[in-house]
Amino acid sequence: MTQKIAIIGTGLIGGSFALALRDSGLDVEISGHGRSESNLRRAAELGIVDRYSTSLAEAVDGCEIILLASPVGVMASLLAQLGDCIGPDTIVTDAGSVKQAVIDGARAGLKYPANFVPAHPIAGTEHSGVEAAFATLYHDRRVIFTPVEETAAVPLEKVKELWRRTGASLETMSPDRHDQIFAATSHLPHALAFCLVETLYRMDQQNEVLRYAAGGFSDFTRIASSDPVMWRDVCLHNRPAILAALGHLQQGLDVLVEAIDKQDGDKLYDYFEIAKQTRDTKILGASARANRDD
Amino acid sequence: MTQKIAIIGTGLIGGSFALALRDSGLDVEISGHGRSESNLRRAAELGIVDRYSTSLAEAVDGCEIILLASPVGVMASLLAQLGDCIGPDTIVTDAGSVKQAVIDGARAGLKYPANFVPAHPIAGTEHSGVEAAFATLYHDRRVIFTPVEETAAVPLEKVKELWRRTGASLETMSPDRHDQIFAATSHLPHALAFCLVETLYRMDQQNEVLRYAAGGFSDFTRIASSDPVMWRDVCLHNRPAILAALGHLQQGLDVLVEAIDKQDGDKLYDYFEIAKQTRDTKILGASARANRDD
Repeated sequence: MTQKIAIIGTGLIGGSFALALRDSGLDVEISGHGRSESNLRRAAELGIVDRYSTSLAEAVDGCEIILLASPVGVMASLLAQLGDCIGPDTIVTDAGSVKQAVIDGARAGLKYPANFVPAHPIAGTEHSGVEAAFATLYHDRRVIFTPVEETAAVPLEKVKELWRRTGASLETMSPDRHDQIFAATSHLPHALAFCLVETLYRMDQQNEVLRYAAGGFSDFTRIASSDPVMWRDVCLHNRPAILAALGHLQQGLDVLVEAIDKQDGDKLYDYFEIAKQTRDTKILGASARANRDD
Repeated sequence: MTQKIAIIGTGLIGGSFALALRDSGLDVEISGHGRSESNLRRAAELGIVDRYSTSLAEAVDGCEIILLASPVGVMASLLAQLGDCIGPDTIVTDAGSVKQAVIDGARAGLKYPANFVPAHPIAGTEHSGVEAAFATLYHDRRVIFTPVEETAAVPLEKVKELWRRTGASLETMSPDRHDQIFAATSHLPHALAFCLVETLYRMDQQNEVLRYAAGGFSDFTRIASSDPVMWRDVCLHNRPAILAALGHLQQGLDVLVEAIDKQDGDKLYDYFEIAKQTRDTKILGASARANRDD
């Protein structure tokens, strides 16, 4: 039987989800919604969606599962609109990189929040938009589910089954723990990459430095090329956890600056050595352990 | 005629220089010096050096050109020792990533500072040590020369000719400008990568976050795996320029934290957009323009 799925926001995340489901051999009919008609038309040309509409109500009509793959900043408004046009049997899930704020939006906007399945696929590239979508984006990547008290078991299992088909492995944790972990390991590094490049932009005004910012530097700042709208929304919607992580970083930076200022070679060595050991053992180790299924 | 070259510090930089010269077909006899006899023996086994000694005087005996490829922190001491064991015809050059401090060391330590050629090959990986050396490390990379008033033309040209043979392109600038540019584009990102990982190390104590620090994060922090001794020395020897760059970064971070704290979406968007535009146009552009010859 054909599964009817709506994808709200047919960019890298939503588009790749659609392509992965088709690739898995699942019989799906995919409906797309977004603000830009030309983008939706392109999604249809690329075989991502079977039909589309710039009207949300029209796009989700008859669909069993709706995936919200829009920037976190518009989730609350979309959930409120969905509250007015879906019935008690429609499952809603999301792919937002912040969970508590989206759960709050679902509780406020949906009439049946038990049918809302909060999830976060840990995948992406620095490219965004429908043209960047590809079927294997989720292969061997993790999708983190953050169900809450009211989340019903059947919708949760149905959404998990779809994500399993994309080649991802699944994990479960609380929204709070999710938001803290990703503030530290994803939002903080992105904020820092933007901050580094913005700093060089300012320094370049006095002293042409950017001409020399090639090679390894360009790898390091790759993520500063990510979508500004997405990261603005992440910062606004995971504010307490990101501020806490930035606070920890500012403390670490103060220690480093003081050690350089005081020419404290032992302190500098220890600081860099702890970072190197952490990176070489814990982070590379984490990479190797990344592919689990819950 | 066989050119006799001494390499002080047969690690990634010195070892790759030797391998590149041999690969270029130049008739060279390479003498190695370092503190560790087992490392020197390994350099001989790998075909990097023809002979070696843990005595600096013995290693440089009869050599026309001496390359200092040691951590910046030991350069001054090596230059002072060389002052006592080389004559007026021996050329000394270095590969340090900080230039003014090494020039100061040459002026203080060498009897013939006119024969000292300060240079910085812009190459390296996060790996260090002789095992990491390879002949093509300098292909299409830049070597920056920072000659000063007293630098004589003939030694400068002889050292340049060797570097040309490694496949590198050459540039010239003042030591001061060099140190400022690399404080911003190299020392600052390295310090920041160490700082980010050290922050996560601290945060991991309370909340197991590092298990999730895989994928893109691991690319981003790759340079935090660099040699702590080298980076301690760089921080100590390019102190004013690095402190200035870190100060600019702290200002940028304060602006970001304030914008998040005040939920100023427009400010956050502009901040991220400037960084993205800078990265996409100036930094990738710089990469494409990287291969010039002076």
